[in-house]
Amino acid sequence: MNKAYVLFSGGKDSSLSSIILSNLGYDIELITINFGVLDSYIHAQNTAKIIGYPHKVIRLDSEILEKSVDIILDDGFPSNGIQYIHKETLNIISDDFEVIADGTRRDDRVPKLSHAEVQSLEMRKNVQYITPLMGFGHKTLRNLVNNYFEISEKESEELLKSDYETEIRAVLRSRGENPLDYFPKHIQSRVVGLKKR
Amino acid sequence: MNKAYVLFSGGKDSSLSSIILSNLGYDIELITINFGVLDSYIHAQNTAKIIGYPHKVIRLDSEILEKSVDIILDDGFPSNGIQYIHKETLNIISDDFEVIADGTRRDDRVPKLSHAEVQSLEMRKNVQYITPLMGFGHKTLRNLVNNYFEISEKESEELLKSDYETEIRAVLRSRGENPLDYFPKHIQSRVVGLKKR
Repeated sequence: MNKAYVLFSGGKDSSLSSIILSNLGYDIELITINFGVLDSYIHAQNTAKIIGYPHKVIRLDSEILEKSVDIILDDGFPSNGIQYIHKETLNIISDDFEVIADGTRRDDRVPKLSHAEVQSLEMRKNVQYITPLMGFGHKTLRNLVNNYFEISEKESEELLKSDYETEIRAVLRSRGENPLDYFPKHIQSRVVGLKKR
Repeated sequence: MNKAYVLFSGGKDSSLSSIILSNLGYDIELITINFGVLDSYIHAQNTAKIIGYPHKVIRLDSEILEKSVDIILDDGFPSNGIQYIHKETLNIISDDFEVIADGTRRDDRVPKLSHAEVQSLEMRKNVQYITPLMGFGHKTLRNLVNNYFEISEKESEELLKSDYETEIRAVLRSRGENPLDYFPKHIQSRVVGLKKR
């Protein structure tokens, strides 16, 4: 099988997606996007070691991050800005890889591509874009995650992750904004161990 | 993990779905729906042996099949009738099982539940409904199927399968209709062997 490059934040969804694709015979390489604002990719590096797949950091132009923050400040809420940053990321990495994947879940709202956008991406870029969790609901994923991983759950302001939100918060702060005005408090989770199976 | 009951036609999609769920730790039982018109479940029984999971036939009321044929004759095309029969099937089996699954693919049109219908099914019936192939596109699935299975591909009129279409065709014939007037010729496939991996 091909190699699959999985967008990886250190969270349970991208971790479980990697395991599903590895089980299917793909060679996995985890990739974490970083815009040079924070060294937040370190957390994903640590989780990558725990789940046992090679990992690399891809540095993208910070203009993408800045523009996503512009969108968030304009809107007063984060969904369109996060959607923008994810679509830009998929577009860019599709130039370099044949098979890409991410941890988008069935019940997620953003970031999530519509079916038409997925097909457009695959055709324009001649890429295979896989979202292994798209057919799994909330309750099923909770069971699977509990089966596979030890999880650390904290408020999003406290937990150090390697997702888009972490650097978006940093840019908001650097512009004198309070991230809590844009991201309501929510529980974030990170994989901190593999359960024995 | 729980037991997962996978709707199984003997085709590549339901076979691959079973493998994904088995890899994730589910105990798999394959179930084939039959309406008592044809013994078409035999083909799924044979494929079940090949892929190595237990299999059972669930007999549903032939009124469901007859009504789906009414819809198809009214419409002049099969999609709404097939959608009806699949939704009825999911509703009925959800009363008996906690985790159900089928081989619906990302790029399928019917049968396919909308996101709202999936959530309604799960809540009404307290069931987990998993569609493991929902995040996989056409090209990716072709690669995976080639990797796992030996496939027999034939025109739909010739290939003996255990899907809804097989019994729908039989009812159409019994009502003096030509199935080809409703189902355009298309290639069907059935799993006839596992590749060594």
